[in-house]
Amino acid sequence: MTHRWKSVSCGCPPPTIDDNISDLQRLLRGIKKGCFDCVEPTYDHPQLLQGLPFALRESNWEVTVILLRGKRSEEPDRIIAVEPGDTTGQLYGLAVDIGTTTVGGLLMDLNSGKVLAESTAYNAQIAYGEDVISRMIYSQRPGGLKTLQEKVVYTINQIIEKVCREMIISPSDISYIMAAGNTVMSHLLLGIDPKYLREAPYVPTCSQFPLTRAADLGVLAHPSVRLFLYPSVASYVGGDIVSGVHACQMHKSPKVTLFIDIGTNGEIVVGNEDWMMCTACSAGPAFEGGGIQCGMRASSGAIENFHISPDTFEPMIITIGRTKPRGICGSGLISIVSELLEAGVIDQQGKFNRKISHHRIREGVSGYEYVLVWEKDTLVGHDIIITEVDIDNLNRAKGAMYAGYQTLLEAVGLTFDDLDRVILAGNFGAYIDLERAICIGLLPDVDRDKFYYIGNASLLGAQISLDDHKRFRERSMVSQLITNMELAENIEFMNHYMAALFLPHTDMSLFPSVQDKLPKGD
Amino acid sequence: MTHRWKSVSCGCPPPTIDDNISDLQRLLRGIKKGCFDCVEPTYDHPQLLQGLPFALRESNWEVTVILLRGKRSEEPDRIIAVEPGDTTGQLYGLAVDIGTTTVGGLLMDLNSGKVLAESTAYNAQIAYGEDVISRMIYSQRPGGLKTLQEKVVYTINQIIEKVCREMIISPSDISYIMAAGNTVMSHLLLGIDPKYLREAPYVPTCSQFPLTRAADLGVLAHPSVRLFLYPSVASYVGGDIVSGVHACQMHKSPKVTLFIDIGTNGEIVVGNEDWMMCTACSAGPAFEGGGIQCGMRASSGAIENFHISPDTFEPMIITIGRTKPRGICGSGLISIVSELLEAGVIDQQGKFNRKISHHRIREGVSGYEYVLVWEKDTLVGHDIIITEVDIDNLNRAKGAMYAGYQTLLEAVGLTFDDLDRVILAGNFGAYIDLERAICIGLLPDVDRDKFYYIGNASLLGAQISLDDHKRFRERSMVSQLITNMELAENIEFMNHYMAALFLPHTDMSLFPSVQDKLPKGD
Repeated sequence: MTHRWKSVSCGCPPPTIDDNISDLQRLLRGIKKGCFDCVEPTYDHPQLLQGLPFALRESNWEVTVILLRGKRSEEPDRIIAVEPGDTTGQLYGLAVDIGTTTVGGLLMDLNSGKVLAESTAYNAQIAYGEDVISRMIYSQRPGGLKTLQEKVVYTINQIIEKVCREMIISPSDISYIMAAGNTVMSHLLLGIDPKYLREAPYVPTCSQFPLTRAADLGVLAHPSVRLFLYPSVASYVGGDIVSGVHACQMHKSPKVTLFIDIGTNGEIVVGNEDWMMCTACSAGPAFEGGGIQCGMRASSGAIENFHISPDTFEPMIITIGRTKPRGICGSGLISIVSELLEAGVIDQQGKFNRKISHHRIREGVSGYEYVLVWEKDTLVGHDIIITEVDIDNLNRAKGAMYAGYQTLLEAVGLTFDDLDRVILAGNFGAYIDLERAICIGLLPDVDRDKFYYIGNASLLGAQISLDDHKRFRERSMVSQLITNMELAENIEFMNHYMAALFLPHTDMSLFPSVQDKLPKGD
Repeated sequence: MTHRWKSVSCGCPPPTIDDNISDLQRLLRGIKKGCFDCVEPTYDHPQLLQGLPFALRESNWEVTVILLRGKRSEEPDRIIAVEPGDTTGQLYGLAVDIGTTTVGGLLMDLNSGKVLAESTAYNAQIAYGEDVISRMIYSQRPGGLKTLQEKVVYTINQIIEKVCREMIISPSDISYIMAAGNTVMSHLLLGIDPKYLREAPYVPTCSQFPLTRAADLGVLAHPSVRLFLYPSVASYVGGDIVSGVHACQMHKSPKVTLFIDIGTNGEIVVGNEDWMMCTACSAGPAFEGGGIQCGMRASSGAIENFHISPDTFEPMIITIGRTKPRGICGSGLISIVSELLEAGVIDQQGKFNRKISHHRIREGVSGYEYVLVWEKDTLVGHDIIITEVDIDNLNRAKGAMYAGYQTLLEAVGLTFDDLDRVILAGNFGAYIDLERAICIGLLPDVDRDKFYYIGNASLLGAQISLDDHKRFRERSMVSQLITNMELAENIEFMNHYMAALFLPHTDMSLFPSVQDKLPKGD
């Protein structure tokens, strides 16, 4: 396994008065001697030179050079740093996933490929809006863009400090940072105004992001360190998805794969080694507890699992952290709706069965509702309920996702039967209960063995391309292999969406395994 | 005449919802259409992207791109800036000469090659030392390097503001900055510690300076603007000399040329299209009025010209600004010594003729002296005098220069007779009186028609390489064509130097034209 980066220990003979060679020339000669496959290397920042005379003399002309290998063979290598002594044993990289909610980071030993430390932190931009849309709105305020840029950098710096403290190294020991984020997060990190991402026709400023010096952005890093950002495919199919596709190496497998990242903005990729198509569909915030009367994010006190007794209609709930409940998170919502559906408490339109008389089912301000937890058993000052409006919101969200799969598959002439694999990416994907998600129609009703959970695929992609020279180069290629399909004004999508606003679907032939579970007729 | 830079007006078709192209891709396509010889251009700073969406939309997708053409044909062009509308008519460059004493700048119209405005300012580093040695000493104090870096940038910014105000343009309208300075000035500008330039074996950190973003150094410029620095040949033969050699195109002429820049650090280049050798000799500060009892820099009140009546030994003096005198500058010193020599007031050893009894010749604290101006006729509170010690200092300074020419010529097997041209560069060279300089032995006694004054050759070099695409590329080549010779421990040089400590020289056969002017015998 070759690495993109290389430490070269080059002994440079000390200067004499007659040789008339600058420190830099001496170093370049040393590199040439020590690293035969190295094209005449370049460098491009005075900071490198500022430290060079001291690094050379401090270690009696024995230094280690960190090189960034050229992309193509004819492209020169770049000198990223020069360290006194032989430091070839120490080569660190940081993989970062810049999520709208959470930022995750991995510190890696680039010599061994091992993960040394890991950390996550809430994206400090959250104070300015929960989702990408509200962040984009905030960015249009005076100073808003700058604030959001600084906040995401602050979050990345928190992670850097934490992993470095854990390994007792300095942030300036990290040689490369590889990051992936959605298109909005990438724009904000680089301080690029996302104004036109939000307005039709939704144009990003760029998709292939420039090689940036991390320190220029305010990231705690040696001035020479580069921050690489995964390229994006389209305005709403970003570098996080490209990184995820890269992580599962879809582009190298003959298997037809459906890659799904469920969220407010749902991203879908379908394809294999021969072709890949992607799309994004706006599902709304229901999966993150948004727009749900008692909804909340997946944190302590959120109801994440739910059972209903088919006889008594009494509930059993499980919360994150096993505390008294505060509200309902996305996975809890899916549990609740699928259980209510299977028990016949709600029908396939998501309406409460008016024939059932039960003390937990009542008519509230916004129509019928089911009381999950009575006020006295909660950590909040009210009953925790689920309403028909909530169920409608979930229905629309899962309907958008499902219509997205269908539209994309149809566009390439395939059906769900043609799928060899369904890969669930993202934090939400990791917590999803397969049967229940299929029961409400969020996931297609295919052989359960075809489903794979990949977790934070975006971080995984950043990790593998830091670790492996060849995969580093694949990075840009992957984004270019994926063709985007726009759903915003797509008629097929609208038709599929309307048909999907039913639990699990108006066309029950698509959900044979669910058919048997639902109560028969009235 | 081709230009390294090119403005390309590229009409970009506005986006539609289906085309899924980022602003940057749209721009790149436009460039490809508009500029056929343009290799896939790159860009490398997020700042470019930050302005891009607005530039495109502000001007309805009609923008002008400023490109930095790749050095070699296989190297991609770089996008330096994108401006709304068609601004191909406006393309400005700044040439800067960073002198130890004075910084000079020229604002150029890069389309026409015309000089639009010119300005000079004292290098604000002067407050921290008059010459490069004292600047290097100051740089070793805590914060000293930073201060010196900021001061030279402050000076460059003064010049930028002045020339921009004159042409009613903004500093951000300047697209390129081409600078030349000696090795110490170049190091200080880039914030590189010159510590090892001052200690044997006098090693510069680098000779080929990196392509630097001007704004990174604090220069008032658009974030994308590059500052190019002329490469240097050796620690004491810097980019200013390379630029000067470049300006007079020595490397393209068959004529054997002696290029001289007289100063505290005297630089000498000899050669032609086939070969070039250079050296630096430490002449001491006498040419700049340093180490001279009544010496001063060439500013208002400095005696710059002097005549003595061969009969009465009474002086006639001319000062800069025609004010009452304050002191003696370098060119004045040469006038005075050559006149005293020709009049027989001093002998060829620089000693006053003890046989002359005159009220202006007297014995002072440091030996014999001649009163140039009585106190009452000065702007200072004392007589303005020239002493034997002063004459000794000048003798050593001119001796070092002359020994430098000799040593360099001998090293390549030539004599003064082989010279086709003698080019005098630098501010001091512009004010020098040829006959008098030859009379004291500062310049070789060759045919007067062979002498050329080129003035600020360093600024001229920066100007021509900004103006002309081909010359821009020559820049690095010129420095590589010049071979440096170190005089510091050179025995030949020491012998020549000892022989030159005589007015004009111990070997009078080298100065036939002076022989006749001097008084015969005692």
